[in-house]
Amino acid sequence: MTQTLDRETAGTDGPEARAQAWLRDFEDALVAGDAGRAASMFAATSFWRDLVSFTWNITTVENPAGVRDLLEETLARTGPHDFAFEEEPAEADGVTTGWFTFETAVGRGRGLLRLVEEDGSLKAWTFLTTLVELKGHEEARGAARPKGVEHGANKHRTTWLERREQEEAELGVSVQPSVLVVGGGQGGIGLGARLRQLGVPALVIDKHARPGDQWRGRYKSLCLHDPVWYDHLPYLKFPDNWPVFAPKDKIGDWLESYTRVMEIPYWSSTEAKSASYSEETGEWTVQVEREGKPLTLRPQQLVLATGMSGKANVPELPGQDVFTGDQHHSSAHPGPDPYAGKRAVVIGSNNSAFDICGALWEHDADVTMVQRSSTHIVRSDSLMEIGLGDLYSERAVASGVTTEKADLIFASVPYRILHEFQIPLYDRMREKDADFYDRLEKAGFELDWGADGSGLFMKYLRRGSGYYIDVGSAELVADGQVKLAHGQVDHLTETSVVLADGTELPADVVVYATGYGSMNGWAADLINQEVADKVGKVWGLGSDTPKDPGPWEGEQRNMWKPTQQQALWFHGGNLHQSRHYSQFLALQLKARSVGIETPVYGLPEVHHLR
Amino acid sequence: MTQTLDRETAGTDGPEARAQAWLRDFEDALVAGDAGRAASMFAATSFWRDLVSFTWNITTVENPAGVRDLLEETLARTGPHDFAFEEEPAEADGVTTGWFTFETAVGRGRGLLRLVEEDGSLKAWTFLTTLVELKGHEEARGAARPKGVEHGANKHRTTWLERREQEEAELGVSVQPSVLVVGGGQGGIGLGARLRQLGVPALVIDKHARPGDQWRGRYKSLCLHDPVWYDHLPYLKFPDNWPVFAPKDKIGDWLESYTRVMEIPYWSSTEAKSASYSEETGEWTVQVEREGKPLTLRPQQLVLATGMSGKANVPELPGQDVFTGDQHHSSAHPGPDPYAGKRAVVIGSNNSAFDICGALWEHDADVTMVQRSSTHIVRSDSLMEIGLGDLYSERAVASGVTTEKADLIFASVPYRILHEFQIPLYDRMREKDADFYDRLEKAGFELDWGADGSGLFMKYLRRGSGYYIDVGSAELVADGQVKLAHGQVDHLTETSVVLADGTELPADVVVYATGYGSMNGWAADLINQEVADKVGKVWGLGSDTPKDPGPWEGEQRNMWKPTQQQALWFHGGNLHQSRHYSQFLALQLKARSVGIETPVYGLPEVHHLR
Repeated sequence: MTQTLDRETAGTDGPEARAQAWLRDFEDALVAGDAGRAASMFAATSFWRDLVSFTWNITTVENPAGVRDLLEETLARTGPHDFAFEEEPAEADGVTTGWFTFETAVGRGRGLLRLVEEDGSLKAWTFLTTLVELKGHEEARGAARPKGVEHGANKHRTTWLERREQEEAELGVSVQPSVLVVGGGQGGIGLGARLRQLGVPALVIDKHARPGDQWRGRYKSLCLHDPVWYDHLPYLKFPDNWPVFAPKDKIGDWLESYTRVMEIPYWSSTEAKSASYSEETGEWTVQVEREGKPLTLRPQQLVLATGMSGKANVPELPGQDVFTGDQHHSSAHPGPDPYAGKRAVVIGSNNSAFDICGALWEHDADVTMVQRSSTHIVRSDSLMEIGLGDLYSERAVASGVTTEKADLIFASVPYRILHEFQIPLYDRMREKDADFYDRLEKAGFELDWGADGSGLFMKYLRRGSGYYIDVGSAELVADGQVKLAHGQVDHLTETSVVLADGTELPADVVVYATGYGSMNGWAADLINQEVADKVGKVWGLGSDTPKDPGPWEGEQRNMWKPTQQQALWFHGGNLHQSRHYSQFLALQLKARSVGIETPVYGLPEVHHLR
Repeated sequence: MTQTLDRETAGTDGPEARAQAWLRDFEDALVAGDAGRAASMFAATSFWRDLVSFTWNITTVENPAGVRDLLEETLARTGPHDFAFEEEPAEADGVTTGWFTFETAVGRGRGLLRLVEEDGSLKAWTFLTTLVELKGHEEARGAARPKGVEHGANKHRTTWLERREQEEAELGVSVQPSVLVVGGGQGGIGLGARLRQLGVPALVIDKHARPGDQWRGRYKSLCLHDPVWYDHLPYLKFPDNWPVFAPKDKIGDWLESYTRVMEIPYWSSTEAKSASYSEETGEWTVQVEREGKPLTLRPQQLVLATGMSGKANVPELPGQDVFTGDQHHSSAHPGPDPYAGKRAVVIGSNNSAFDICGALWEHDADVTMVQRSSTHIVRSDSLMEIGLGDLYSERAVASGVTTEKADLIFASVPYRILHEFQIPLYDRMREKDADFYDRLEKAGFELDWGADGSGLFMKYLRRGSGYYIDVGSAELVADGQVKLAHGQVDHLTETSVVLADGTELPADVVVYATGYGSMNGWAADLINQEVADKVGKVWGLGSDTPKDPGPWEGEQRNMWKPTQQQALWFHGGNLHQSRHYSQFLALQLKARSVGIETPVYGLPEVHHLR
């Protein structure tokens, strides 16, 4: 994997030799500064996705014209060289795939390319370049790990514990963090670990009492819906006895242990109250309350890691003030125990709605789900087997697809065409579970498969909502154990929910499983509306599908990359995204903290405010 | 590694084919029940080391006669079969080495054999067999890991947290542990993890307030003297940013996190006060005090994991009652801070003595070391490079020698001849660091290299003492910064230590770095002297070298294997031993807990009481 193949040893006309020739010619064009020639080596329909290595951005350009544009702006300052395959390129179904390494003036990178035949020669179809490390700022890992003890006799020796205690005493008081990460769930913690490892003076703050409480505090039957192979954090993998779908409290314990073991500077019971940025000083002024005491922090960079599922959408409905039962957003649902024998109405029909309905039914509540729009459902087993198994599974690990490799393979498929690869998978799931879907439809449940049949993962990337990974509750709807109602809520009465068609649902508790808003809402709360609007909508691809209006962006809006607000960043996503993209966010922050020039190519315009 | 080679595909006269033939013939002899024929396939000088798979013991037999004896007693009941090489056997320097797997009636095993040419045919020179798992009791790991969530709808669902809480509430109260592990340092914790993973109802108790306090409470400059690759715990390896030599508080944090993440039933602030065994009921009655409250536990098996360096040897000296300064054993040394500017006398010249002298000197104490007998010193860097590098290092990992493989290679060299492999390594260290040793000798320090020049690791195995891994303090002795005195202590006065030759050393503090006693001393304290004497000395090989009297035992006395006291076990050693041998101790305990017959072959007689 890490060995570099000698370009000269292979034959001259096999796929390997031709790929070697392509890579050599490409490098020659780059070294000659010839953007046009390099661009002409891409197929008519082609994609170059760069994660920070050329563009100091997360961006995809398309076709030779896009490649040429990227190179004309970035080539001279990037100084790419020393491209080399890490392992023998392999051909299958007309596509030659190759893993390669390369260097730039300031860093080392890794990439994955796919070559296809076009007009009699090999051309790049997909080309992924990623930044792995900054020269002179390599991580202390493996052979470069710290020694730990300082051998010899030294009258001024300080111990690890003394240094840790001193650091904790000074941070935020006499020493300002260079980076402040607001939000210490898995996103903030993973990023905190990377920043720590890169030696960036950073601080993660979170309002909860302990790391992991973000999970512990959720409804009690909650387990991860993604499997363990997809969920690893950076640096320290779950052990091989870890459950496939970890229960929330176990994840909470892991996050707390991880925070300590990775020595992440982390303040619990700390809330960010307000923040403002001064372009003059290049500093944020962030007012925080730590264990009730006010404090001002002055970081250069501010990361909002409060969760793409962080800011609750709570509908405003007539009658909410007269309703005498409990009502709360799904994120504040206390679990089913108080509601045994009670009548529960759950507004919404996505993941949280199903999980909550199932748990309430299990605790003998009388449960009605209100479906407001169609929902995409896939069964967990089918999703694991068909949707994820090739990249994230015991089978994948056994066949050499490590998490690191899976992440890069995943990242190498351009968003523009990702749905084309997804559609057949979901067709297979629909066929495999046809009976299941029949029963749901007979029960009146409105199903969809995404705007173009591309299923769950595209819905997640486009809008972060609209689906349920079935772990059992769908059957309760199919057989009527959980009752189903349809339409928008018109108003609440003292004791019921009334729908637009007049249906009245008696209720002791109403749960608004109504999802979450765009993360720039956090910026509005913490900074101001002006900055939130300047940054615009966070998440989504611009796919022109429901809840993801166009134009096409090519990447997820504002995630892990520079925004229109200088020194403001958004971090989050599922455990896979948090793990992988924290690498690129951390390297961007590191470069800035040590004064490496970071000219951004392709900063997108803002088209939507929320 | 895990693929089984087809015996038929290889050629017929290369080393591989000949090894294949040997293994096939050996299995044929075993399956035929022909102990004599199988024994005749061993060389005149040869060793079979079995870790639990044939003998339900940790034992080594020697030469064809020993092999025959072992097989005559164990063969019929063991039912070995399906021997197969895991990877191609390889020949080097006249020795053909092969990794193999095998099965018995109740389990699956893994082994490592070395074949040599003798009288024109291949014969076994070393033969290691180890038990990996019990059939029907395989660990839930990898592809067999737990699912975590229970999919479906279930009105009687309990969550992971509820089950954990219930288990904690019941354990030791309404549910008795099958195994009680006394001592929750790295040894007890690692064993606890294995027992948990095997589904053995076990409980680890420890007197400290938190897991890891065993390390946190030691002198503050303490770091591991063994490197990270040697120190992994079972299941969850240190991440690759972990320091080579971890500071004590960092290890403490790791152990605490590990205990939680591995879900080890663990009672802190709990002391075992007394224990007695009833052969009638097959139960121990153990009186414990948990957070000050008395409680009786009734386990079937009792493991003392209180540390081979657990029970302090404190010399009784005239005048200790009149001495007005501080005096304490090294294990109770509070660190150097209180002694700046004071006069410190440290009795002893091994690891703890050097570490403490160094730290006191760094804090401006006036330090004298009292050397009572010669000490073996090796420099840490040299030990890592020459002594451990082939098995436990970044280099070893890079060349495919995983921790698991290194452990088995290490275990495969019989103790009887281990010193022969060690002597040349220490010869190299002596040569490499000749200047260093010259300087120490010129300063009057009495050096040795073990009774036969075999150095540190043999001293550790034989007596667990008599050495210092130099991390800097030896230079302080060499250049007189730490003063050196010689001989036994005769008595103390109000203000000084007086040696046998009349030398008087003024002292504000006296540290007894005088080592630790045999672990059966713990049994005397907890159970009674009769049981301690029945069990006899713990640790050592019977090498007939200082502090390790003969006769030859072949294995470490009483460690990780049955003792003369039914249902009493000793566990401990360095992190490497704790990790590896906890596997075999856990499997022995598991077998007993589920009623698998465990007839012990070769239970040794007791020759020494302490």
